[in-house]
Amino acid sequence: LRGEDDEEELLVDYVEKNTNNMSIKMPHQLFINGEFVDAEGGKTYKTINPTDGTAICDVSLAQISDVDRALATIEALDSGAVYTLALKTHVGMSIQTFRYFAGWCDKIQGSTIPINQARPNRNLTFTKKEPIGVCYRDSLELPSDDAGLEDRRLPGRGEHSALVGQRLSDHPDVRKLAFTGSTEIGKHIMKSCAVSNVKKVSLELGGKSPLIIFSDCDMDKAVRMGENCIAAGRLFVEDNIHEHFVKRVVEEVKKMKIGDPLDRATDHGPQNHKAHLDKLVEYCQIGIKEGATLVCGGKQVQRPGFFFEPTVFTDVEDHMYIAVEESFGPIMILSKFKSGEVDDVLRRANATEFGLASGVFTRDISKALYVSEKLNAGTVFVNTYNKTDVASPFGGFKQSGFGKDLGQDALNEYLKTKAVTIEY
Amino acid sequence: LRGEDDEEELLVDYVEKNTNNMSIKMPHQLFINGEFVDAEGGKTYKTINPTDGTAICDVSLAQISDVDRALATIEALDSGAVYTLALKTHVGMSIQTFRYFAGWCDKIQGSTIPINQARPNRNLTFTKKEPIGVCYRDSLELPSDDAGLEDRRLPGRGEHSALVGQRLSDHPDVRKLAFTGSTEIGKHIMKSCAVSNVKKVSLELGGKSPLIIFSDCDMDKAVRMGENCIAAGRLFVEDNIHEHFVKRVVEEVKKMKIGDPLDRATDHGPQNHKAHLDKLVEYCQIGIKEGATLVCGGKQVQRPGFFFEPTVFTDVEDHMYIAVEESFGPIMILSKFKSGEVDDVLRRANATEFGLASGVFTRDISKALYVSEKLNAGTVFVNTYNKTDVASPFGGFKQSGFGKDLGQDALNEYLKTKAVTIEY
Amino acid sequence: LRGEDDEEELLVDYVEKNTNNMSIKMPHQLFINGEFVDAEGGKTYKTINPTDGTAICDVSLAQISDVDRALATIEALDSGAVYTLALKTHVGMSIQTFRYFAGWCDKIQGSTIPINQARPNRNLTFTKKEPIGVCYRDSLELPSDDAGLEDRRLPGRGEHSALVGQRLSDHPDVRKLAFTGSTEIGKHIMKSCAVSNVKKVSLELGGKSPLIIFSDCDMDKAVRMGENCIAAGRLFVEDNIHEHFVKRVVEEVKKMKIGDPLDRATDHGPQNHKAHLDKLVEYCQIGIKEGATLVCGGKQVQRPGFFFEPTVFTDVEDHMYIAVEESFGPIMILSKFKSGEVDDVLRRANATEFGLASGVFTRDISKALYVSEKLNAGTVFVNTYNKTDVASPFGGFKQSGFGKDLGQDALNEYLKTKAVTIEY
Amino acid sequence: LRGEDDEEELLVDYVEKNTNNMSIKMPHQLFINGEFVDAEGGKTYKTINPTDGTAICDVSLAQISDVDRALATIEALDSGAVYTLALKTHVGMSIQTFRYFAGWCDKIQGSTIPINQARPNRNLTFTKKEPIGVCYRDSLELPSDDAGLEDRRLPGRGEHSALVGQRLSDHPDVRKLAFTGSTEIGKHIMKSCAVSNVKKVSLELGGKSPLIIFSDCDMDKAVRMGENCIAAGRLFVEDNIHEHFVKRVVEEVKKMKIGDPLDRATDHGPQNHKAHLDKLVEYCQIGIKEGATLVCGGKQVQRPGFFFEPTVFTDVEDHMYIAVEESFGPIMILSKFKSGEVDDVLRRANATEFGLASGVFTRDISKALYVSEKLNAGTVFVNTYNKTDVASPFGGFKQSGFGKDLGQDALNEYLKTKAVTIEY
Repeated sequence: LRGEDDEEELLVDYVEKNTNNMSIKMPHQLFINGEFVDAEGGKTYKTINPTDGTAICDVSLAQISDVDRALATIEALDSGAVYTLALKTHVGMSIQTFRYFAGWCDKIQGSTIPINQARPNRNLTFTKKEPIGVCYRDSLELPSDDAGLEDRRLPGRGEHSALVGQRLSDHPDVRKLAFTGSTEIGKHIMKSCAVSNVKKVSLELGGKSPLIIFSDCDMDKAVRMGENCIAAGRLFVEDNIHEHFVKRVVEEVKKMKIGDPLDRATDHGPQNHKAHLDKLVEYCQIGIKEGATLVCGGKQVQRPGFFFEPTVFTDVEDHMYIAVEESFGPIMILSKFKSGEVDDVLRRANATEFGLASGVFTRDISKALYVSEKLNAGTVFVNTYNKTDVASPFGGFKQSGFGKDLGQDALNEYLKTKAVTIEY
Repeated sequence: LRGEDDEEELLVDYVEKNTNNMSIKMPHQLFINGEFVDAEGGKTYKTINPTDGTAICDVSLAQISDVDRALATIEALDSGAVYTLALKTHVGMSIQTFRYFAGWCDKIQGSTIPINQARPNRNLTFTKKEPIGVCYRDSLELPSDDAGLEDRRLPGRGEHSALVGQRLSDHPDVRKLAFTGSTEIGKHIMKSCAVSNVKKVSLELGGKSPLIIFSDCDMDKAVRMGENCIAAGRLFVEDNIHEHFVKRVVEEVKKMKIGDPLDRATDHGPQNHKAHLDKLVEYCQIGIKEGATLVCGGKQVQRPGFFFEPTVFTDVEDHMYIAVEESFGPIMILSKFKSGEVDDVLRRANATEFGLASGVFTRDISKALYVSEKLNAGTVFVNTYNKTDVASPFGGFKQSGFGKDLGQDALNEYLKTKAVTIEY
Repeated sequence: LRGEDDEEELLVDYVEKNTNNMSIKMPHQLFINGEFVDAEGGKTYKTINPTDGTAICDVSLAQISDVDRALATIEALDSGAVYTLALKTHVGMSIQTFRYFAGWCDKIQGSTIPINQARPNRNLTFTKKEPIGVCYRDSLELPSDDAGLEDRRLPGRGEHSALVGQRLSDHPDVRKLAFTGSTEIGKHIMKSCAVSNVKKVSLELGGKSPLIIFSDCDMDKAVRMGENCIAAGRLFVEDNIHEHFVKRVVEEVKKMKIGDPLDRATDHGPQNHKAHLDKLVEYCQIGIKEGATLVCGGKQVQRPGFFFEPTVFTDVEDHMYIAVEESFGPIMILSKFKSGEVDDVLRRANATEFGLASGVFTRDISKALYVSEKLNAGTVFVNTYNKTDVASPFGGFKQSGFGKDLGQDALNEYLKTKAVTIEY
Repeated sequence: LRGEDDEEELLVDYVEKNTNNMSIKMPHQLFINGEFVDAEGGKTYKTINPTDGTAICDVSLAQISDVDRALATIEALDSGAVYTLALKTHVGMSIQTFRYFAGWCDKIQGSTIPINQARPNRNLTFTKKEPIGVCYRDSLELPSDDAGLEDRRLPGRGEHSALVGQRLSDHPDVRKLAFTGSTEIGKHIMKSCAVSNVKKVSLELGGKSPLIIFSDCDMDKAVRMGENCIAAGRLFVEDNIHEHFVKRVVEEVKKMKIGDPLDRATDHGPQNHKAHLDKLVEYCQIGIKEGATLVCGGKQVQRPGFFFEPTVFTDVEDHMYIAVEESFGPIMILSKFKSGEVDDVLRRANATEFGLASGVFTRDISKALYVSEKLNAGTVFVNTYNKTDVASPFGGFKQSGFGKDLGQDALNEYLKTKAVTIEY
């Protein structure tokens, strides 16, 4: 408690790479029981650089026995929680996350609760919050340049990842599992948690987040946000500014510099895998076939690596495939709504099985608060987008999952409440 | 809000029964959309009086179409929550539950959260807690006289109940399901919730709750509690008082009046079904076969109805079937522990996949608080047992489930948190 | 707890009056120890009807000995809190207040707090919230028709009231005093609380609450609110709508029906006392003398009773008496501010020793939230005014006092926190 | 927020001293506006070493103009809070205090509150907690070796201190004052806060804290605690162990090594001032005169410096001066209570105008919890004493003051709550 523990030095076997004139050192082993170790049998796999398709380095490939070994050591601790401390897209946010939650450590309070007194006896009832025990937090993250909110829910990291994930959701000593990924895999994981040992589970799954843009918004900001968060899901634009908005967006999209994500001048990097790139091409073909208007983009960039052109679709009708399914790529889906028909655009925005995030751009305080109230999603951004903060709970409604990452609410996902009643 | 709504009179078709010189009226229909109605096709089933095996009355038997009809009307409401307002064992507690939660209605607050300021823009981040939407609370309760904590987790109410439960855990419009019952059925329900639409779920499942009795306890109280809560799971008695404790318990058990649960002089009523009675007989036979000592009871009472003799087993070893499995009946399972070996008895008490409740009897404040801290169960009773209160959160650890009934924590099971960030 | 107490019938000696074709019964005695009783020596005073100057009825006049008698009986209770359950201006709100706080009774929770462990000993630290003991809540309310937020802070109810108040702030058995009234009397009361027995005190004192009206507001609503809350303190109107706003306000003011407050058609009733009426006349004369423009009103209405004309001043400069002091009457104080100079009008609005309430009218979400953030007052209303609610904490900053009425925060004013640490 | 600010180096003019083979550097100037500066006119005073009566060094003596200068700079900050960061008795606790409260910085949340909806308009009501503005935390601390809980409430640090304190409680720009000291001075300070500008105030004042020792306690621990916390106020010892307890205490007291507080072998150091030493002599003489039994000590130690003999009084009756007044010195006040008369000893323990702290030693859980419930003091220690922790709220009842130091509650002392209601 409060920083008085001794610390030992950690031995790490790094891989060194040179990039941007900096030498970067990365551990390539598994982190088990406080040490970096090789996987069982020394198995490794190559990570591929999506910018040019070359191999970066060999990384230890965890086997089932490694998973069990890791859990066994955790079991031995008084009460541990294990995280796959995956490098977040934004390293700064990881640091903030550690700082923020470190501050909670000595502030996790239970309650004393007044209960009915049965004279002559008296009672003291109190609760304490304890760590759940062995938890596991998995996420299938895409460390690509354009990784926005949605991009974290890619359908898989290949079979190796699935092997570890499966073992953990089945494992009899794990009591809680938090998963970030696609709804499809989320359902499977929750099922495994159920039948193995009724694990507590929290899920941050897929989304097709609506962003509603009213004509009285700050247009510059709306264009900038729409562009940054090109994968927002689906934009609804008020019809009296639709033409102008599309023109502005296309102008901006054409200025985007596509290239090496480690080059600071780059606006948009490559997709993570060849498979994903192919999926985006197919996604756009379906859009065109169903009658949406392809305004720009829609195909691979003519250069080495897995680059996809920033893409804009308009005239997207509610029933179309691209109106309903996530792309996980740089594809903007635009639909029009009739000027002033606030309730109707809300109905359309909520007519989805997802409820991860949402947004609205308007200067009008009444409209902004009314739309915020009615959007059926775990997060609503007003006149901004994707502004997550470690202190703000993040998590979805409906088939986007349940439970919260970040914020005070996230703490409770990893705590269990014990109620003690003493009669005296 | 705050009691200013108008109310309409409710038409109820009652069944009248005479008992204890009182005339009791019970609705026998389904309660859907604010009305009592017959089930689709007028289907009914007979409820059987376990005291003498006769039929009490015909009760409407819900069909899948009835479930859908009920949910459809709920959907139409702005934000509804449906409960199977099952008659609790103790009606008084139901009333208290309504009073307690009614008081929360206008006190459900979200937060305003300080987030990092990105100048020149400013942010307001706040959360609001909203009803999840269509929730369902199922429980397979046993309204029998001896219903203690454990008795609520019986393995089923037959196929009719299962039909309704299955439909609800599969239903695409239900977003949250709370279930009280056996761990086996709980796993199945959570699986259905996962694969249908990733329903949020809370589970109050099986238990084999340990009760540790130290030699410095108030013996009279310990005997009384042990007897009242004969189904506590498993008692660990300090060896220096073991002989005396067993003698006292048997004396008390022999005084118990077995009979009609509606007769106020009765200490112990019948089991709920013939099937359950047969299971108890088998349970005791396994105990005897594995070497436990049957001190008294162990068979059906020689009279009409499904009565089982209050039963006491001693010399129960940790590996035996009756040390590990719930009986749901009036069977006390006693194990000895070595005087002073607190950590060892704690290890044994925690060596179970359940973690619903637990208890300790001792006058020593240090021992009481140490044992409370170490017992790995959702509820710990000290010098009392089964003293649940509407304000105290109740729910298990490990395979006894997750989520809380009762208390402020229970509220959060039925609420979802929306985070709104406004940039200004 | 939870409504299971028996209740006795209360004997009340009422005065009956006929008004609006209804017969109203009012108790006229003191309420001490659960009974209505006469004051010591049978002393009474006459309450005067300000509509026509006639006496309404004789009311028991509490003497010091009555105060002591009342406190003595409270002392005898386990833990009591006494309120002068004054008839609030809006009876509906009183009822809501009772309902709201009744719901808190069984929800007042303390905390269990993790503290540093000093091995080998362990600790349990918890807090419980207990009633402070004998509390007293005084307020000098003005049950007049035009009673808005400000009108409750009149400088006194005469010497009788002062006698009781003084005795209570001096009383050695009272541990907490809450006072609503003028800043001047508040200072005196806090001083008495200090030197007698260091009473805990909460104060809701004077205000001169600013209301900022931007040109992009809903003008109809702003005029309506300005009129309703004519005593808001001080209005700052953006200069490009100033002329139009004044014209609209004057039109509305001229339509106001002045008369008997019990007649539902009446918009504005009489002042409470002759003294107050005289003070308003003087207040307006100072305003004129210092150079403010009297647009309408400013003198007594030519009819029996203590009626004052609804009054509007414009061109009020920051240094003027009427810009700084409360009037407690139907006098609107209008100042202009330069279009777009948001920070400057904020500076002027905050340049006061009061900080009770404040308001802003604008449709612009950024302006609304920025101004809300910067206004240095306990309450900020946006696009509404005087919308108090029992669940929302109400109380001022700076010399408007400290502590909160209403809301969960108000509970804590009457509770003390005991921290218990057990080493085990 | 979250540690990303730049920091400048601070220039400090230290005084160097050698002690315990360590060189200690202490700043001797005033800390105003982020710099260490001399007082107005270069005024200084000498701090006296109570171990031998010599001067340690010259320390800048703050003048009224210095106070105003300090406040003026604070005013200029957006929202500042100034603390007299006095070296706490235990430096370790200061460090913990900074760590603990630093963790709160980004976790200070307000609420969103459901209020009654007046259709067709909708409302958003939320609160934010803001720093009160210029706060001041004063305490008259005694950095002596035997400084326990009570020793911090000495009657003054001389006139210089009083000058600064008076200026601060009168100052029109200070909005909140927290004071730790005697009840007498506390009353005066609260009075000044009232009449100047209705400052919010929190007070931690005098105490005469009861410690009840039952015969079933851990005697070794009770003796050790009684000895450590010799200034606890007043000990009530159950009569059947009274003789034995006194014998054990006297044995321990006689072993105490009196001497230089910087020598680690020392158990008890000198009093802080000559005046205090004289007061202790007088205190004991009154005790003897009123009939209490002086068992040991009671006079100055025959060596240079202001040392007072550890002193034990028995047979102290409730009405005696030494039963009612604090000594602030190493004087143990012992009273007997009749075996088993729990309610009577509680009545005696609570019969005081103070309510700062209290304690009980017993192994019996029922007795421990019953006594904890009934002791009317802000802090209750069970089987320990003076175990304060930064996370546990500390503050008194009755004339020991109000408001809390430490813990989450302490935060609220320095925050004000703004409620915003938006109609939309």
